[in-house]
Amino acid sequence: MSLRTALTELFDLRHPIMLAPMGGVAGGELAAAVSNAGGLGMIGSGDRAWLERELAIVADKTRSPWGVGFLSWAVDHDTIRWVLDEYRPRAVMLSFGDPRPFADAVRAAGATLMVQVTDHDEARRAVEAGAEVIVAQGGEAGGHGAGRSTMTIVPTVADLVHPTPVLAAGGIADGRGLAAALTLGAAGAMIGTRFEATHEAVLSAEEAKAIVAARGDDTSRNRVFDIARRSPWPTKYTARMLRNPFFDRWQDREDELRADTTAQDAYLDAVQRQDPTAIPVWAGEGVDLITAIEPAADVLTRIAAEADAALARAARRHVDDL
Amino acid sequence: MSLRTALTELFDLRHPIMLAPMGGVAGGELAAAVSNAGGLGMIGSGDRAWLERELAIVADKTRSPWGVGFLSWAVDHDTIRWVLDEYRPRAVMLSFGDPRPFADAVRAAGATLMVQVTDHDEARRAVEAGAEVIVAQGGEAGGHGAGRSTMTIVPTVADLVHPTPVLAAGGIADGRGLAAALTLGAAGAMIGTRFEATHEAVLSAEEAKAIVAARGDDTSRNRVFDIARRSPWPTKYTARMLRNPFFDRWQDREDELRADTTAQDAYLDAVQRQDPTAIPVWAGEGVDLITAIEPAADVLTRIAAEADAALARAARRHVDDL
Ligand SMILES: Cc1cc2nc3c(=O)[nH]c(=O)nc-3n(C[C@H](O)[C@H](O)[C@H](O)COP(=O)(O)O)c2cc1C
Ligand SMILES: Cc1cc2nc3c(=O)[nH]c(=O)nc-3n(C[C@H](O)[C@H](O)[C@H](O)COP(=O)(O)O)c2cc1C
Repeated sequence: MSLRTALTELFDLRHPIMLAPMGGVAGGELAAAVSNAGGLGMIGSGDRAWLERELAIVADKTRSPWGVGFLSWAVDHDTIRWVLDEYRPRAVMLSFGDPRPFADAVRAAGATLMVQVTDHDEARRAVEAGAEVIVAQGGEAGGHGAGRSTMTIVPTVADLVHPTPVLAAGGIADGRGLAAALTLGAAGAMIGTRFEATHEAVLSAEEAKAIVAARGDDTSRNRVFDIARRSPWPTKYTARMLRNPFFDRWQDREDELRADTTAQDAYLDAVQRQDPTAIPVWAGEGVDLITAIEPAADVLTRIAAEADAALARAARRHVDDL
Repeated sequence: MSLRTALTELFDLRHPIMLAPMGGVAGGELAAAVSNAGGLGMIGSGDRAWLERELAIVADKTRSPWGVGFLSWAVDHDTIRWVLDEYRPRAVMLSFGDPRPFADAVRAAGATLMVQVTDHDEARRAVEAGAEVIVAQGGEAGGHGAGRSTMTIVPTVADLVHPTPVLAAGGIADGRGLAAALTLGAAGAMIGTRFEATHEAVLSAEEAKAIVAARGDDTSRNRVFDIARRSPWPTKYTARMLRNPFFDRWQDREDELRADTTAQDAYLDAVQRQDPTAIPVWAGEGVDLITAIEPAADVLTRIAAEADAALARAARRHVDDL
């Protein structure tokens, strides 16, 4: 059995699962593994050297559709045009910020335009930009995002942007989550955190182990690390990560940290030294459901099979009235 | 068709839906309406006068099972014993705080012990207390709660407390949400916010209208109002409500408000005067899905029918591999 949705039709996929374009983590190996296993692999954003290296890998390792994600607030026209011209990705996802300035270039190049949104205003703007797929992200997601939850943002964005297909992102790490996404009205799930704990992810062994060991109750959505590293991320977006000693020290003291350049310098030093009490590990509430580091293809295939089973189980709950 | 789960079996319900015991909102009329329509009606907590009045109403208006909810951090043994002896509720739910001191009394009286939890430590404590049903609440919920999301807390608590049945709470306001709860592994949904916009809820016409008009993006989870009214709620629990001008003034300034007794006095005055710019309306992210004030029975029946349809739609996505 397999699951057919607008997403699987659009890209001729075996499973309605898309890899999240995790910056610095979703490289060519991971994207190719997901695409070759029947999902939609995505390359995360990064600097030119990262993109050149990882795009070459994915282009080399798969003949199946794959895509690339950009941060709307950070990317420039030249980078997008260069990637479109040189690598011809089948899909481009724009996240976090205004996608409209880049939408025409993406569609003109024949790539499918996907936009990730964190609230209803962003969903409306994605429609204006001509998005062909909209990813509705809940705050349980790993990495950057905002405050809405997957449970409520998916059905309401689906209503708002109908008939544009919507994918669910945030907190989906097993087949029950994928099945829930489909019943909420999504055409599939975009999954990040679960794919961090795979052999193909670009992640240190320590980071991957920390993700396997972590509990969802230990993740936190905050601005502490963006402030500490003087990152220009728009303040609308917080990031969910594993709590660590540096975070515990600065929790609820973001204004203080913003003013304390000495503490910022110390933090940048600690990250340089790879100090594990300071390095941020971006990950979502779904870490509870991660118990092993595995090949990405195994993760993908299992989630799809479990979703099948979860839907069948839920459907068996129907009985004719007595 | 109808949906059968451990919850419907336990109480012989027509639909796997439980009314949230909303303090001051879920009174006898609403609880009886839900129970008579085939769900499990619950009376919210309140002072002795509230309980006496509302318990008399529910006991009078339905022959079907119903229950009552208490705040573990606030209730006392005398109140619980009095309610158990005088009104013989079929179910008692304990939320927010340690349920263990009250568990024996509930079970000794033959009532089904339900415990609402907001994280995994609370789930373990609920099992220790001998909970027969555990409600896993996500932070998208209206009213008090904590930070986890429904999408991740439901499957992980279900794994943790297996084989105890788990209900999903938080952000469920239509049949897609109920269907998602079932695919996540829950035996049903406990619904609060959606039932605020019913004829039977104890709510002013202005508050009900505000809920219909509100957008999920306009709700906020915070401690501002508990601080302003000098409430003894444990600080672990925040409350989700509709933003209003009082909140906008004090957002991110909770410490300041805690120290400012003049501002607190002014707030208490404003609430006394029923000032709509200050009165808190507790409601969850699910408000987006609420478009009308209706009879509770209609809401219940529609959610169940929609869940049926959502499961059928999701199940149709299965196709035999070509
Ligand atoms: C390590 C990590 C890095 C991420 N980087 C990006 C990024 O560069 N661009 C982006 O659009 N989303 C990024 N995200 C968010 C994902 O697109 C997606 O919304 C999220 O992973 C989904 O939730 P989940 O992690 O619970 O599966 C990142 C997520 C993680 C975990
Ligand atoms: C107005 C209101 C009052 C509430 N009061 C209580 C309460 O007294 N005791 C309790 O256990 N939960 C209370 N809750 C939380 C509910 O039990 C439940 O977790 C929540 O309503 C579920 O999420 P939803 O509102 O999105 O349906 C309240 C919720 C609301 C909206």
